Amino acid sequence: MKDIANGVCAPQGFSAAGVHCGIRKNKSKRDLALIVSDRRAAAAGVYTRNKVKGAPIAVTKEHIADGYARAIVCNSGNANTCNADGVQKARAMCELVMRDTGIDASDVIVASTGVIGQVLPIEPIDAAMPSLAAALSRDGSADAAEAIMTTDTVRKEFACEFELGGKTCRIGAIAKGSGMIHPNMATLLCFVTSDAAISPEMLSKALKAAIDDTLNMVSIDGDSSTNDMALVIANGAAGNAEITEDGEDMRVFCEALKYILTKISRAIAKDGEGATRLIECKVSGAADTASAKAIAKSVVCSSLLKAAMFAADANWGRILCAIGYADARLDIDKVDVSLCSRAGKVDVCKDGNGIEFSEDEAKKVLSQDEVTIDVTCGDGTASAVAWGCDLTYDYVKINADYRT
Amino acid sequence: MKDIANGVCAPQGFSAAGVHCGIRKNKSKRDLALIVSDRRAAAAGVYTRNKVKGAPIAVTKEHIADGYARAIVCNSGNANTCNADGVQKARAMCELVMRDTGIDASDVIVASTGVIGQVLPIEPIDAAMPSLAAALSRDGSADAAEAIMTTDTVRKEFACEFELGGKTCRIGAIAKGSGMIHPNMATLLCFVTSDAAISPEMLSKALKAAIDDTLNMVSIDGDSSTNDMALVIANGAAGNAEITEDGEDMRVFCEALKYILTKISRAIAKDGEGATRLIECKVSGAADTASAKAIAKSVVCSSLLKAAMFAADANWGRILCAIGYADARLDIDKVDVSLCSRAGKVDVCKDGNGIEFSEDEAKKVLSQDEVTIDVTCGDGTASAVAWGCDLTYDYVKINADYRT
Repeated sequence: MKDIANGVCAPQGFSAAGVHCGIRKNKSKRDLALIVSDRRAAAAGVYTRNKVKGAPIAVTKEHIADGYARAIVCNSGNANTCNADGVQKARAMCELVMRDTGIDASDVIVASTGVIGQVLPIEPIDAAMPSLAAALSRDGSADAAEAIMTTDTVRKEFACEFELGGKTCRIGAIAKGSGMIHPNMATLLCFVTSDAAISPEMLSKALKAAIDDTLNMVSIDGDSSTNDMALVIANGAAGNAEITEDGEDMRVFCEALKYILTKISRAIAKDGEGATRLIECKVSGAADTASAKAIAKSVVCSSLLKAAMFAADANWGRILCAIGYADARLDIDKVDVSLCSRAGKVDVCKDGNGIEFSEDEAKKVLSQDEVTIDVTCGDGTASAVAWGCDLTYDYVKINADYRT
Repeated sequence: MKDIANGVCAPQGFSAAGVHCGIRKNKSKRDLALIVSDRRAAAAGVYTRNKVKGAPIAVTKEHIADGYARAIVCNSGNANTCNADGVQKARAMCELVMRDTGIDASDVIVASTGVIGQVLPIEPIDAAMPSLAAALSRDGSADAAEAIMTTDTVRKEFACEFELGGKTCRIGAIAKGSGMIHPNMATLLCFVTSDAAISPEMLSKALKAAIDDTLNMVSIDGDSSTNDMALVIANGAAGNAEITEDGEDMRVFCEALKYILTKISRAIAKDGEGATRLIECKVSGAADTASAKAIAKSVVCSSLLKAAMFAADANWGRILCAIGYADARLDIDKVDVSLCSRAGKVDVCKDGNGIEFSEDEAKKVLSQDEVTIDVTCGDGTASAVAWGCDLTYDYVKINADYRT
């Protein structure tokens, strides 16, 4: 797996653009993104399980029901959710894409992110669509990545290269966090492109498999958004033999997709609202995968632990506490815990009880911008990884100020 | 139901005391509490479901297995949890009570609260027990309430008076919050006394029934502590006919117990770590009680909503979002939401969609120290209430600084 540049435009046949259309008041912030494939592409999606669903989700589901799409349009600044005219507006966005690109509206994926419950103004999107379509280019991934950001502080853009039957293929992705993020939903917005040839059925299977170990293992704040979706479109421009069944090609494609979505997951967690550091929890030796995942998620979701991590405080009792209330098969008296980072490794708990450790050393380890909590259970061989971040003053500040 | 003074000492036959023994470094903060009944009392308890359980819980369960107890001893500043010698230390605390009060160690309920995973020093408790026993008095409830406080900013002490078969009976309680609090555990520490005569079986039944609608509906931060317990002891000093079966007396006793535990629940939520206001969510018209409770808890647990409440910001989309991810039977298109407080009532959502409202009026309503979010579903007749608080800078500050 080789890291490459250009995000969603790294795969052949894709172009992208991002502009400021005016949904956001801040004129220096792009707020409308468009990604286009030069040919029809297999499409698959995973969506929030929240009963309150953004109107764009309904329209997107309808548009990719036939397994294909060609474009993705997304605005930030307004979620187009809990509005009586939401579906109508989402359809209008697709029709505007058709007007200015010629792509059939029913081949357009539509997404919105931002404040819930405010009517989406269609006029700025209408007015900006010609220039957005005109700006489409092979260098446009960064602009598109910026345009879908909400409270994100950095763009999330990754791409990788791999081989399928001797042909070089690529997967690229952009995503936005960074609040209202919790496991067991599609979480966030994530748009993935590929030039591999793969059937819609296998693409959907690959996405679901990858998501379970990546985006569904990220939690910023325990809130699951109404507008989450992860969409992947694959246009076959790489010229590989189309993947239509399980086998080596499918295995490699799944590995590449998981590789990119792991990068996205870590980036989203690290840029969680107000976060100063990435908290990774690695669980091993668990009784089963469900238990391993439950433990890992419970640890990265604990508000108390997250606050302690902000202070780089080795308050491991809170780790044990969070493990203890996870819905997991677990013998707590066999649990070992270590704190790790590029600054070293400190064992803090053995067989469920505290052990002597150097507070200074622990502080050094926890002061890094990426910290791993290693939890070793004595119950089996299953493992899992979850990602979160620390809880800081800025999380409160961002979310107390967000709407006003 | 009449409110009266003196907390756990309001019922006949009870005395209490609280002193500083030295587990906490701050000499002005009491850290050891004792509550004693002048006769053996029926006893019942509810405990955390965390797999990591404080050592005192094991000892307390053993001591009230016969349905009776006479004393409650509790320290703050150290949870006596995740320590190899925890059970031994918890037993030692009961034996020290026996030494200085003559009450059999097996009739002593023991509890600890504070940092997890630090060895509990028994010496300060040993040294202070004589003066603690000597200080027992009918006026000691406030001192005991203070001694069990951790990050609480106010004492939680309530009592009420009611009649059973012509005899005046009383229930009193003290409790401590104010972090690591979440529904579906016994949550927190809560000690309840009564001079009613009631069998251990009926007392246990009454406690479990009351807890479900009170302490189990409080959430501060989603973390369920390792040391939570709610204990009630009832000594029969009021002289009523012992309650041994369901009937009018049992109904009245349950009502009184629920009345006191509701007061405790509200007080705990309002004094949640860093909180500036109580957030109450009242759900009505739900399909069933489980759904009503799930919705109410989901709303008060949402970090995003809690941050918005800190800013008194009527970001009702976050309420809808939290309703939407509750594990509930629900038609989201029939949900109405209003914001209420002593400053008035503002409707913000009707049939799942936003409606026009005055932001100024909403700000006024939400700026009060007690705010109610009314959620009306269109699915049935079930209702529930949950309590929480806003999420503030101080929550982060308190928990980043707690151990160090």
